Amino acid sequence: MLPLNLVAALPEMGGSKIATYHFNSDNGAPVCEQVMNALVNCNRGVEVAYGADRFTATLAEAYSNFFERETFIFPVPTGTAGNGLALGAITPPYGTIFCHERAHIVTTEAGAPEFYSGGGRMTLLAGEHHKISPAALECGLQSHGIGNVHHMAVSALSITQATEAGVVYEMDELGALSAIAHNAGMKVHLDGARLANAMVHLGATPAEMTWKAGVDVLTFGTIKNGTMNAEAVITFDPEIAKILSFMHKRAGHLCSKMRYMSVQLLSYLEDELWRRNALQANGNAARIADALRLCAGVELVHPVHINEVFAILPPSLLQALRDKVTLPL
Amino acid sequence: MLPLNLVAALPEMGGSKIATYHFNSDNGAPVCEQVMNALVNCNRGVEVAYGADRFTATLAEAYSNFFERETFIFPVPTGTAGNGLALGAITPPYGTIFCHERAHIVTTEAGAPEFYSGGGRMTLLAGEHHKISPAALECGLQSHGIGNVHHMAVSALSITQATEAGVVYEMDELGALSAIAHNAGMKVHLDGARLANAMVHLGATPAEMTWKAGVDVLTFGTIKNGTMNAEAVITFDPEIAKILSFMHKRAGHLCSKMRYMSVQLLSYLEDELWRRNALQANGNAARIADALRLCAGVELVHPVHINEVFAILPPSLLQALRDKVTLPL
Amino acid sequence: MLPLNLVAALPEMGGSKIATYHFNSDNGAPVCEQVMNALVNCNRGVEVAYGADRFTATLAEAYSNFFERETFIFPVPTGTAGNGLALGAITPPYGTIFCHERAHIVTTEAGAPEFYSGGGRMTLLAGEHHKISPAALECGLQSHGIGNVHHMAVSALSITQATEAGVVYEMDELGALSAIAHNAGMKVHLDGARLANAMVHLGATPAEMTWKAGVDVLTFGTIKNGTMNAEAVITFDPEIAKILSFMHKRAGHLCSKMRYMSVQLLSYLEDELWRRNALQANGNAARIADALRLCAGVELVHPVHINEVFAILPPSLLQALRDKVTLPL
Amino acid sequence: MLPLNLVAALPEMGGSKIATYHFNSDNGAPVCEQVMNALVNCNRGVEVAYGADRFTATLAEAYSNFFERETFIFPVPTGTAGNGLALGAITPPYGTIFCHERAHIVTTEAGAPEFYSGGGRMTLLAGEHHKISPAALECGLQSHGIGNVHHMAVSALSITQATEAGVVYEMDELGALSAIAHNAGMKVHLDGARLANAMVHLGATPAEMTWKAGVDVLTFGTIKNGTMNAEAVITFDPEIAKILSFMHKRAGHLCSKMRYMSVQLLSYLEDELWRRNALQANGNAARIADALRLCAGVELVHPVHINEVFAILPPSLLQALRDKVTLPL
Repeated sequence: MLPLNLVAALPEMGGSKIATYHFNSDNGAPVCEQVMNALVNCNRGVEVAYGADRFTATLAEAYSNFFERETFIFPVPTGTAGNGLALGAITPPYGTIFCHERAHIVTTEAGAPEFYSGGGRMTLLAGEHHKISPAALECGLQSHGIGNVHHMAVSALSITQATEAGVVYEMDELGALSAIAHNAGMKVHLDGARLANAMVHLGATPAEMTWKAGVDVLTFGTIKNGTMNAEAVITFDPEIAKILSFMHKRAGHLCSKMRYMSVQLLSYLEDELWRRNALQANGNAARIADALRLCAGVELVHPVHINEVFAILPPSLLQALRDKVTLPL
Repeated sequence: MLPLNLVAALPEMGGSKIATYHFNSDNGAPVCEQVMNALVNCNRGVEVAYGADRFTATLAEAYSNFFERETFIFPVPTGTAGNGLALGAITPPYGTIFCHERAHIVTTEAGAPEFYSGGGRMTLLAGEHHKISPAALECGLQSHGIGNVHHMAVSALSITQATEAGVVYEMDELGALSAIAHNAGMKVHLDGARLANAMVHLGATPAEMTWKAGVDVLTFGTIKNGTMNAEAVITFDPEIAKILSFMHKRAGHLCSKMRYMSVQLLSYLEDELWRRNALQANGNAARIADALRLCAGVELVHPVHINEVFAILPPSLLQALRDKVTLPL
Repeated sequence: MLPLNLVAALPEMGGSKIATYHFNSDNGAPVCEQVMNALVNCNRGVEVAYGADRFTATLAEAYSNFFERETFIFPVPTGTAGNGLALGAITPPYGTIFCHERAHIVTTEAGAPEFYSGGGRMTLLAGEHHKISPAALECGLQSHGIGNVHHMAVSALSITQATEAGVVYEMDELGALSAIAHNAGMKVHLDGARLANAMVHLGATPAEMTWKAGVDVLTFGTIKNGTMNAEAVITFDPEIAKILSFMHKRAGHLCSKMRYMSVQLLSYLEDELWRRNALQANGNAARIADALRLCAGVELVHPVHINEVFAILPPSLLQALRDKVTLPL
Repeated sequence: MLPLNLVAALPEMGGSKIATYHFNSDNGAPVCEQVMNALVNCNRGVEVAYGADRFTATLAEAYSNFFERETFIFPVPTGTAGNGLALGAITPPYGTIFCHERAHIVTTEAGAPEFYSGGGRMTLLAGEHHKISPAALECGLQSHGIGNVHHMAVSALSITQATEAGVVYEMDELGALSAIAHNAGMKVHLDGARLANAMVHLGATPAEMTWKAGVDVLTFGTIKNGTMNAEAVITFDPEIAKILSFMHKRAGHLCSKMRYMSVQLLSYLEDELWRRNALQANGNAARIADALRLCAGVELVHPVHINEVFAILPPSLLQALRDKVTLPL
């Protein structure tokens, strides 16, 4: 029996309303009020198109402050686009990306890494709670045969933080993985679909979580945490940024009315919206987990670090829950 | 001296306010009120992600009614994405797309057709007002050598309606081009970045303008005519739709919170918003053109069919205009 | 301890000379005399380039006779090129190829399937002796989710005959696999790097081994069985042939002095050279296997069907062998 | 009326035998005796496959001596493969290659540059005798807009030496073009399908003709000048070589029985076979041109520098020639 993933902890979901919400996905939540207001408020007057507007003018600086380092930021409408672009920028067509066999880029992005890299491959590693261990990475690299032209070139490591099992890499794990990857000549990508949730879980700063941990390029998710359709590819490396600038336009992700992407990303930082939403979402999940632990016959299959609770429920509870809320299939 | 393109006729631009607006691009305009309201109004409660929401559920039917035929619709954030996907769905990597040498897909989409087709090419045709004549297409096909494996396979014809010079193909021209293309085994793509403007100019129905004229797949633009970030790839062919469904997700254009894409496209049809905006935009351009015709030394280099006015202005007028409004470079 | 693959049975290797040969690969063997003579004999006078020569003129007919059906044949210099082209012709960029996890296309062709498909993927199946069982294929298809756009499109099945473990699929196994694949809308590719060896093992005709068993396109290997640098992509489907004709040239595999490719492939059929060489090679391997079975401590890890003997040797025997012949690493 | 290209000057074509030969292409000639002998002579005994044989072991050194610099060499079966690989190694998918509008890579290689670059484009320049002038390149770069993400990235310059019109770039022209290209951040590719013919025309050394003139990677043609099926991609840049090593295998151009590719390329250098053949071919063409100049009504449309004579012939002469020899269409 497959565990049920109760991605319950929607940002705006208060404890009292829980029974009226479903647990399908944080992608099902509406846009949070602060972001919607920002969209409405920027909808005045004419702006120059394609990113030369007054809102986008402040975007790079806002994120450079957030990450405490010069940051290159490329808004995109989905995490799939973000992961594809980020991986494509660091993976040649003849290169391979080491990642977990259950990574989202493997299982549910329809071949975006292959598309954006122009024919690259993913080399799959196993690991508990969908985490790659440093030992697994080293072993994978060794058995791959670096430089052997009958194999693919070793190009990138992709880590999901938090993992698809809702589990967070500790800082020293991230650092160890990055060190191995860099040592093998690879670049490091972080899939941060729920990065804010991971950051508040760890109490880590954006800088600690990314470039200080050796991350070269990341997909910075905001949609699952309150925005409408603005994720971002972020890098600190001007060379990667240059590649991304062409790929981003070429793939049709450079929006003409860019202001509406930029204000979402700007609003996300204002008054630490990202942190407030993530704290609430993680807190909701913790309460769900706590409640489930009191139920006989429930097994939580992964630690609950962020806003995802993977549980095997006894049939009676499952049915009772289905009567009240919409559950994932 | 290059003509200046006064893309002045922004949807919400009334005649009295003209001096306060710039003429840079209709992409610079804000989202029109009806669409923004629709976005705000749909922002309630949880919906199932990735297009299984209640708004998207009505999208295909609404557009099937609009086009008077079963319609497959794929929302995308930009025209470049739309053109790339549409052309990629009908062009194999070894295929070539016949198009005008000044087509937007050639000049300003950063190689999106090559990216989405996986290595296709564009074969360029010349023609007045950026229009392809049937004779030019026939001549181009003949000199290409269909079936010669030392050349590329003949795959697609891409027509921009209205053209990048703001000029509209008459219905019989569209029909003649499609017939030649189909006869050569090619599919027909319509870049409809300003399709509503062309439709109101011609008084043609959506059906007449597309599948009745032999169009197999089109990029249906709405952003320049009032929405925020929702264009659509539209086809009437289930085989092309099947290909698009995979490409659309794979490229990262399947939005998780899809409702916000769908309501823009739904709102665009409500109370014929598309027609009202296009009429106003075209009317504004006509008034600008009329005014320019009264000025000594002004040359209008293309007929003014839609909301674009290409003019060569005498230096004094140019300076006077620059003092009042923001002009394109 | 990894088993040693004694690919010993080189075509021209007589039993008496065994000690002077190494066991590294049948790719290490010289060109057999009949083929080299054909090359020398065709080296007279001028021929029209790019396949319009008098030798190539007879190629399709010779192979149509061989396969008892109209055959489209595309000479290529390597098996990697052949597999890449064949798979690329039946796999869209968004498609996936089901194959064994130890298939040559996976392990040692440097991403050729991804390259030639323009970004496709391989979905890996397990199975004893590197064979895919019908049950494994059905299970793989079921868990993949056909038509789910978050996954890749199900496009092709690739079977290696004989497998990379030197084991031959029985005719009913091939038929069952093809039926499942076709039923799921997939095309069937056969990697026939050692097809002649498999044919003589089974006593199957070329027709039985290919299109009668549901194969849509195959890589027809001849190099390991006596030629210099001429494999062939072969299909019986005119639609696939049309695609291949463009891909073949585009990838740089259409040789200008084509006669030298064609005569190798023609010579290979003359007086059943393919059969004579394969019989000798398989026979040599059988004798090696027989000899090894008499040695204490030797384990043959796969059945010996063709010219490959995978054996785990005791250290003393291994050393004795190393003193006499060149072994693979 | 199109000029006729009398690619007459086949290496082994003596003056006395001219009437028995056709003028279709130097690709129609047989393999010259020295090369065929080398192939026959190497056909003994077992060699390790995939380039670890004793012949290939000397290849890089032989060519490093030839080019007076460390040379990385990748044998390929066709010029199309060579150009595709060379350009793909220096052109990202979002990059454009500046080249002459009549370059072979544009007109008759079926999109190989797009295939090998994974979606790049060619930007076409005009010029007399199919030569790019430094002024044309500078103008092309200027109008392209370097760094503008709505266009493609400026990546490579491809020069054909001698051009497709049989005309040779002078050394200072090559140097000027390379300097402009490098200054714009581009790499320089030389299509040397008839490089030996150009070298003997100019009296230039291999070093002068390539890296001393700023060439980063070249397609070194030998097939039109006497070999069977061995061109080579050559670079002096270890970074480009690393990329090529993966691409070369991945595209299926790394031959298993590599010795037969290597001996062709080795034989080509022995006793300056390349020079002897090219001198004879160029000389034959000069004699044809001289003869034609004596005929009334003949127009030579390009200077005759190498083994190509482009002539417009009066109908009577054309008919007389057709009665005696096979002419191109």
